[in-house]
Amino acid sequence: MTTNFAQRIHNANYKFDPYVRSLVDCDFYKLLMAYFIWKHYPDVGVTFTVKNRTKAVKLPAIVPEAHLREQLDHVRSLRFTKSELIWLKGNSFYGQEGIFPGDFIAALAGLQLPEYHLEVRDGEYHITFSGTWFETTLWEIYALAVINEARSRAAMADMTKYELTVLYANATSKLVAKLKALKEADVRGIAEFGTRRRHGFLWQEFVIEAMQEELGAGFIGTSNALHAMRMDLEAIGTNAHELPMTITALARLEGLERSKRPTVENSDFMKQYLRNQIFMSQYRVLEQWEQTFSGNLLVALPDTFGSTQFLQNAKSCFPNIEHWTGFREDSKDPYIAAEEKIAFWKSLGVDPRQKLQLFSDGLNHELMIDLSNKFRDRIRCGFGWGTNATNDFRDCDPRGRTDLNPISLVCKVTEVKNLKTGGKVGAVKLSDNYTKATGPEEEIAYYREIFGHEGVADIPVEV
Amino acid sequence: MTTNFAQRIHNANYKFDPYVRSLVDCDFYKLLMAYFIWKHYPDVGVTFTVKNRTKAVKLPAIVPEAHLREQLDHVRSLRFTKSELIWLKGNSFYGQEGIFPGDFIAALAGLQLPEYHLEVRDGEYHITFSGTWFETTLWEIYALAVINEARSRAAMADMTKYELTVLYANATSKLVAKLKALKEADVRGIAEFGTRRRHGFLWQEFVIEAMQEELGAGFIGTSNALHAMRMDLEAIGTNAHELPMTITALARLEGLERSKRPTVENSDFMKQYLRNQIFMSQYRVLEQWEQTFSGNLLVALPDTFGSTQFLQNAKSCFPNIEHWTGFREDSKDPYIAAEEKIAFWKSLGVDPRQKLQLFSDGLNHELMIDLSNKFRDRIRCGFGWGTNATNDFRDCDPRGRTDLNPISLVCKVTEVKNLKTGGKVGAVKLSDNYTKATGPEEEIAYYREIFGHEGVADIPVEV
Repeated sequence: MTTNFAQRIHNANYKFDPYVRSLVDCDFYKLLMAYFIWKHYPDVGVTFTVKNRTKAVKLPAIVPEAHLREQLDHVRSLRFTKSELIWLKGNSFYGQEGIFPGDFIAALAGLQLPEYHLEVRDGEYHITFSGTWFETTLWEIYALAVINEARSRAAMADMTKYELTVLYANATSKLVAKLKALKEADVRGIAEFGTRRRHGFLWQEFVIEAMQEELGAGFIGTSNALHAMRMDLEAIGTNAHELPMTITALARLEGLERSKRPTVENSDFMKQYLRNQIFMSQYRVLEQWEQTFSGNLLVALPDTFGSTQFLQNAKSCFPNIEHWTGFREDSKDPYIAAEEKIAFWKSLGVDPRQKLQLFSDGLNHELMIDLSNKFRDRIRCGFGWGTNATNDFRDCDPRGRTDLNPISLVCKVTEVKNLKTGGKVGAVKLSDNYTKATGPEEEIAYYREIFGHEGVADIPVEV
Repeated sequence: MTTNFAQRIHNANYKFDPYVRSLVDCDFYKLLMAYFIWKHYPDVGVTFTVKNRTKAVKLPAIVPEAHLREQLDHVRSLRFTKSELIWLKGNSFYGQEGIFPGDFIAALAGLQLPEYHLEVRDGEYHITFSGTWFETTLWEIYALAVINEARSRAAMADMTKYELTVLYANATSKLVAKLKALKEADVRGIAEFGTRRRHGFLWQEFVIEAMQEELGAGFIGTSNALHAMRMDLEAIGTNAHELPMTITALARLEGLERSKRPTVENSDFMKQYLRNQIFMSQYRVLEQWEQTFSGNLLVALPDTFGSTQFLQNAKSCFPNIEHWTGFREDSKDPYIAAEEKIAFWKSLGVDPRQKLQLFSDGLNHELMIDLSNKFRDRIRCGFGWGTNATNDFRDCDPRGRTDLNPISLVCKVTEVKNLKTGGKVGAVKLSDNYTKATGPEEEIAYYREIFGHEGVADIPVEV
C-alpha cells in the first residue's frame, strides 16, 4: 500500500484537531433563536451552565483541563466565514428565502463568543458562559459537542488500530441495522438532532450519510447547519426552552425589582398581576416568534412549565396556536403527549392529521417505530433523533469497556440579567418530568405555585 | 482531510491489482507436498481441474473471461523471490529447521507454473492445469483464490463507497462476534485455513489479525505461507488428498498397463495382486511421508477412500500409525469421526488425549464450540477454519444481495500420467461422503469394489 505521509502526520497531530470546526457547526435553531434574541432582546444578559447529569462519570478524571481549555479556546477563535454568511443569507429554509436580514448577518460577522469560566469543584467541571444573550446562546452546542468528543477521544486514546477498526465496524453495523428497521417499518419524518451529543464530528457526518442512504424519503434533514450546508440538506429545528425560560425570568425579574422599590405598594392585586405576567410569558414568546418567523418554523414547545396547563390555557391566552404547525415534545411520556395533542387539536375543531407531533426526547429506533405505527394515521409524526443516532457505541468496544456509552450532559440558561438595571434572577424550567426541572429551588417552588403540577411525572432520564 | 492522490490513483487502477501477489501466497502444505512430490515422484504428470459445485452460480456470467485470464496470466508471471526462498530455507516449521534442502529450494527458484487451459462450455468455465506433478500442484490454490476474489470484486463493482463501508463493517462485526464466542468458550487449536476460499487477500490478512487479537493462545497460525511470513506466524498444514489419490492412481495405471501387455497372463492371482497394490497405496503414501518429514507434520488424512476401512486395516498394514500425531478430518460427520478415532487410538493401546483430531470440513464457530466442548477432554482437538473465517459475507450486503455468499469451488487432480510410459488414468477420491466423491464413474466403481462402502454417508456439501 502507498503510505500517506501527510495523513499519518495529520493523525499524529491529533491534539490540534478541533472538535468544533466552524461557528455554523451547531444546531440551526440556535441561529433562528439568535436572530430572535438579537431582534427582540438586545439588553438581556444570560449565564449558561454545563451540567453532567450522569453522576457516575467524573469528567476531570477523563478529560484533562488543559485539553478542554484548548478546544474551548479554539471555539472562541472561530468567526463566521464569508461563505457561511452567504449561505445563511442566500439559502431558503423550510421553503422560505431571506429569513435573516442583512443587519443580523452583519451582527453575526462581528460575533466573537464571550469568555468561558471553567473550574474543577468536587471532582467535576463547573463551566459557565456569561454575556449578552445573543452572543452567549451559541456556546451551548459548541460546549456540549466539545466535551462529548473530548470524552470519546479519551476513551479511544489507548485503543489499537485493530480495536478502533472493530469499534467503528460494530457501531456502523448497529447504526445501519437500526436504520433498516426504521425503513422496514416505513417511519417518516426522521431528522438528525444529535450535534450536542455526538461521538464526534466525522461520525455525525457518517450517521447523516447513512440516514440519507437507508431512510430515503423518511429522512428529512439535520439540525446541524454545517452538515446541512456541506451535504446540501434541509437544516431542521425551530426553538428551545431557553426562550420561554429567559422571557419568563425577565417577567419574574421585573416583579422582583418592582417589589424592591419603596414607593410601590405590594398589594394583592399587584402580586397577582406579576404572577399573571409570569404565566403569560409562555404565550408571549410564541406571539413574538410568529412576528419573526412563519410557516413551518411555527413549532411550539409546550413543556417548559408543564404541557397540560399550557394546553388548557392556550385556547384563551393564545388562540392563534390553531394556525401553528404543531408541537415538539421533549419531556413527557410520548404516548401520553401525543394523545394530549390529538385531543387538543380536536378541541379546537382542527384535524390532528394536519398538525405536526415532533418527538425529540430519548428516542431510539424501537420507540420511533412503535410511535409511528400507533400515531401516524392520527397525527403528522416527526422525529428529532439525537444521542441514539450520533453517539450509540454501547456494546461496540471490543475490549468490553463502557466509557464510550453516552452520558447525560446539558448546558442550560441558569441566570438572566437585565443589562439596563443590572438586576438578575435564576432561570427556571419545570418541564413535564420532575427529573428534568432546572433552577434554584425557591424559584422552582414559586413557579410551581403559578403553573401547578398537573400532568407532570417522574421519568428516569437516560441521555 | 488530506487527499491521498497516490492512493486514489492506485484504487482507480483496480484492474491491475493482482489477486495472488506471490508464489508463497498459497497453503503451506502445498510447499511440503511439492517437496515430497519433487523428491519421490519426478516422473509423474497430473491434470488438475476446477469444479464449481454450486450449480446455481454460473461464473462466466459474473467474471469476464478476459479478466480471469489476466489474473491467471499474472500468476504465471510470478517467481519465488529471493527473500521468500531464504524464508523457506531458514525458517523453522513446527519447531523443525531445514525442512527443505538446498536442491529443492533451487528447484523452486526455477519454477514457472505451466499453462492453463480455459474455455466456456455449457455456460460454465472449464479450467485445467497440466504438467509435471511438481510444477502443477501449486496451481490449485492460486486458481481458487483468483476465481473467488474475482467473483467478490465483481459482486462489489457497482457498490458505492457507503455500501462498501457498511458491507465491511457488517462482515467485521460478524467475524469478531464469532471470535469472541470462540474465545468465551475457550476453544483452542484454531488455525486459519481459508486461502482458497477467501473473499480477498486483504480481507484474509484482516481475518488473521482479528484471530490473533481475539483468540489469544487459542489461535495457532495460518495455512497461508505469505501471511505467516509477513505476520511472523506459524505456517500450518500437512498434506492433502492429492497424494493418496495420485499414488493410488499410479498403482491403478501400472495394473492397466500390465494387463495390456500380451505376454502377461491376467490370472486371478495377478488381478488380486493389482487390487492389493491399489489398496496398499493409501498406506504407502504415509510410509513415504514419514521418510520425508517427522514430528508434527505426521498428520494423516484417513478419508481418501473411506476412513472406516482405512482404520480397520491400518493396524496390520501400517502399524507405525501409532507414532503419528493424529488425523485430519475432511468429509465425515465430525462427531462420528472423532468417536471413531478415539476408539481407534484406544484399540492401539494409545491414550487419545495424546493424539490430534484436526477438524477441517465446513466448520463454523458454533460447530467448533460444540466439538471442543464435547471432545477436548477426550482427544486433542484442532480446527482448520476456512470459508466461514475468510469468506463469510452472508447477510452483510446492505443492498440485501447474496452474490457475496460463498460458493463451493474445488480444484482436484483428475488425471494421472506416467511420464515415462505416457500412460494415463483418471484419479479417484471416494471420501466419507458420497457427495464428495470425484473421478470417472467406472473408476469410482472399481475403487469401491476394492475399498468398500463402510462408514460412507450422504452429507450435503455447503462450502
